[in-house]
Amino acid sequence: SFSTSTSRPQNVPHLRTYDPHTSLSSLRVNPSRLLNTLHHTSQWGTGHRYGAHPTETGMSRLALSDSDKSARDWFVETTKALGCEVSVDEMGNIFAVRKGREGTEGKAATFVGSHLDTQPRGGRYDGVLGVVGGVEMLRVLEEGGAETGFPVGVVNWTNEEGARFPISMVSSGVWAGEIPLEKAHGLKEVGGGTATMRGELERIGYLGEMPASHEAMPMAAHFELHIEQGPILEKEERKIGIVKGVQAYRWFTVEVVGQEAHTGTTPFNARADPLLAASWMICLSNRAAASFDGALASTGILTLEPGSVNTIPGKVKFSLDIRAPTDKTLDMLEKHLRSDFDNVVADATRNGQEMSVTWQTDSVSSAVYFHDSCIKAVRDSATAVLGDENLAREMTSGAGHDSVYASRRCPTSMIFVPSRKGISHNPKEYTSPEDCAIGADVLMQSVLRFDRQRVATEG
Amino acid sequence: SFSTSTSRPQNVPHLRTYDPHTSLSSLRVNPSRLLNTLHHTSQWGTGHRYGAHPTETGMSRLALSDSDKSARDWFVETTKALGCEVSVDEMGNIFAVRKGREGTEGKAATFVGSHLDTQPRGGRYDGVLGVVGGVEMLRVLEEGGAETGFPVGVVNWTNEEGARFPISMVSSGVWAGEIPLEKAHGLKEVGGGTATMRGELERIGYLGEMPASHEAMPMAAHFELHIEQGPILEKEERKIGIVKGVQAYRWFTVEVVGQEAHTGTTPFNARADPLLAASWMICLSNRAAASFDGALASTGILTLEPGSVNTIPGKVKFSLDIRAPTDKTLDMLEKHLRSDFDNVVADATRNGQEMSVTWQTDSVSSAVYFHDSCIKAVRDSATAVLGDENLAREMTSGAGHDSVYASRRCPTSMIFVPSRKGISHNPKEYTSPEDCAIGADVLMQSVLRFDRQRVATEG
Ligand SMILES: NC(=O)NCCC(=O)O
Ligand SMILES: NC(=O)NCCC(=O)O
Repeated sequence: SFSTSTSRPQNVPHLRTYDPHTSLSSLRVNPSRLLNTLHHTSQWGTGHRYGAHPTETGMSRLALSDSDKSARDWFVETTKALGCEVSVDEMGNIFAVRKGREGTEGKAATFVGSHLDTQPRGGRYDGVLGVVGGVEMLRVLEEGGAETGFPVGVVNWTNEEGARFPISMVSSGVWAGEIPLEKAHGLKEVGGGTATMRGELERIGYLGEMPASHEAMPMAAHFELHIEQGPILEKEERKIGIVKGVQAYRWFTVEVVGQEAHTGTTPFNARADPLLAASWMICLSNRAAASFDGALASTGILTLEPGSVNTIPGKVKFSLDIRAPTDKTLDMLEKHLRSDFDNVVADATRNGQEMSVTWQTDSVSSAVYFHDSCIKAVRDSATAVLGDENLAREMTSGAGHDSVYASRRCPTSMIFVPSRKGISHNPKEYTSPEDCAIGADVLMQSVLRFDRQRVATEG
Repeated sequence: SFSTSTSRPQNVPHLRTYDPHTSLSSLRVNPSRLLNTLHHTSQWGTGHRYGAHPTETGMSRLALSDSDKSARDWFVETTKALGCEVSVDEMGNIFAVRKGREGTEGKAATFVGSHLDTQPRGGRYDGVLGVVGGVEMLRVLEEGGAETGFPVGVVNWTNEEGARFPISMVSSGVWAGEIPLEKAHGLKEVGGGTATMRGELERIGYLGEMPASHEAMPMAAHFELHIEQGPILEKEERKIGIVKGVQAYRWFTVEVVGQEAHTGTTPFNARADPLLAASWMICLSNRAAASFDGALASTGILTLEPGSVNTIPGKVKFSLDIRAPTDKTLDMLEKHLRSDFDNVVADATRNGQEMSVTWQTDSVSSAVYFHDSCIKAVRDSATAVLGDENLAREMTSGAGHDSVYASRRCPTSMIFVPSRKGISHNPKEYTSPEDCAIGADVLMQSVLRFDRQRVATEG
């Protein structure tokens, strides 16, 4: 249904200036150029190889690492070469803006946004597809000389994953005014390293001067193309997810302090073993979450001290990521877990040993409902691109995205494409070239539809 | 009951040559010199401070670290200055031998042995007291000009703790012919570092040329003074443990492999979460061990990959240290746990996900029964030093010691002194100066008794 050649598509109308009567609805992305670009950028931070094909590796491009810097440099150069004005804010967010029709200079752009950072053992699509889809949109518009009613842009948000600096979507959070700049700048990398976000921004040359703020860089709308990261679209053989919102989640660091002791000479009743306690807590957190409708609990990081075969640890820290469709369910789950964990400690101290558990709240992302105008733009674009409305469905995102924070300050929606076996945060993450292209088409069409709508209302 | 002055004790007989009719049973150590020496050596690898007093820190002197090298250099210089012949073997074991009466050159010495390495967050007494007690014995003999029937010696064994290189007592194990030299030399440090024992021995200049072997360095006997590391002596208000043997223990590395996945988009029934599985295993190992008479199970190290808040780990490794009074009980416990762990994996894979568990055996230390002749020497010496046989009791060690391997090749026993609250492998490990001195007296008297006995039998 779409061309796979890299040559200039035949269906591009040649517009020099904006014309409300010339439809851009036939514009389509160049699928192989889109994919080539995605795999091209995978040279920076190439990750774990899982198959023989050149593209069968994951990605390991932690935020603000050297490889992230290279990917950023590419993004800046590429969008500048496409005629965009590029600006970088204090959080290293990079905004590339393409002019709209005359007289709209200085007006907020309709943005496509996502992120180029990845998990330490992530895949090639999560985030990257959204940014590359935005760049492909700029290319199609440029190549067709297509002028939009208002400026359009592409933003690369910093540290979306929360994998290196442990608040996800932290930089769109600062932009939205929901996370203080100082807190974000002061974030330390996980795993006991000493690097801070501000230090790393400076080191790689991406500590911009523009305030990280929706006031300094307002957006007319924010559209994000992303892989589903779940199994639904594949199972139902659909092509597009029209994302209506994002579930709630909270991240905690739980610290259990017991008593270091000799493994060979310390009877069970003389122990205060924080790893045994943490193990119970992890088991209980899974059990409790399973008992709440649609809730999840997960631990991805666990560290202990001092780390010797024959010493019972004195201290254990673990991450706790809990999620639920509504804030209310999440409140109940958190309350339940706090009481469960207290019980574990109470059990452990019944024998007279000392033990304590403390919770540190690292980040909170409330349940989010996107905007009807954007959801409609995505729905209509999906129907137009797919030719069959049954190939799309509405859904809620289990994962957080920069669109969560964008949605606090501008109309927002997202477009999901199928993830093979629902796998992500794994090198084997995969979305077919066809599905990537369909997603990018729906993304571009959503932006153009929104832009046209804007002209209709704002003039 | 004993002097605390640092000046020369009044009760030292002035012997120039061995005289079977002159009793050495009145010889006593110099308590403050003993303690000063112990605290003096704590300058190398000073650990965690837990109180205001200068000596209220633990120790962090991992085997073959720079601080271990400094402590070794001190041991070599000090024993050489006391007239000993010092030799170092291929495992870095350091043997300091003091001549016996004329004509016994080349005969095996009666050894005092223990270790100068510590846990990463260990105390000042574990191992160190035994070596320092041996040095104090040499000082008392030298100062008194006391000649023994046969040579006596002090050995500092390498990496007893198994804290840096994960086989405890590995170098006495090589000496005893129970652990292959290549295996020991190839051991890598825990925690993912790349240093090997051989490399580190070379680096700090303690890769000796003498074979690490009971044939190259035979021993007439091996006596070891050690802190109890358990609560029994303190609770029963006794001063000396006459150690009849050591319980059995085994160390494993258990690896659980599951599937990396997104914490927010992966429903429980689509997960293969190796950390959840490992948590169950740790809980079950504790529960199972508690159901076997006198058995223990403990996990001191746990690492996971990739380590990101919002990624379910793909792989978890943890150490498993199991102990029991007899090899037979330990066999049963191990079998039980293997089946428990298989059940956890079977449960986890019932939903169609893939998961595996593998056990690697890192070290095996069978239950050991010491030698009647040495046990008798310790018992008689304790009675003589304490003046009351009820202040001593027989006991079995929960911890492994170099005496385990020494006992395979020569008569062996150990002397325990009280540990405050039974705490060890913890900076707060503590034994009173008085108890240290009593232990060192019993140690020296055991050696002298054994030596006298030897003269009576060997001539
Ligand atoms: N899309 C994505 O993986 N975002 C990371 C934030 C989260 O953990 O949900
Ligand atoms: N004494 C001592 O702590 N030795 C270490 C070997 C063990 O774990 O038992």
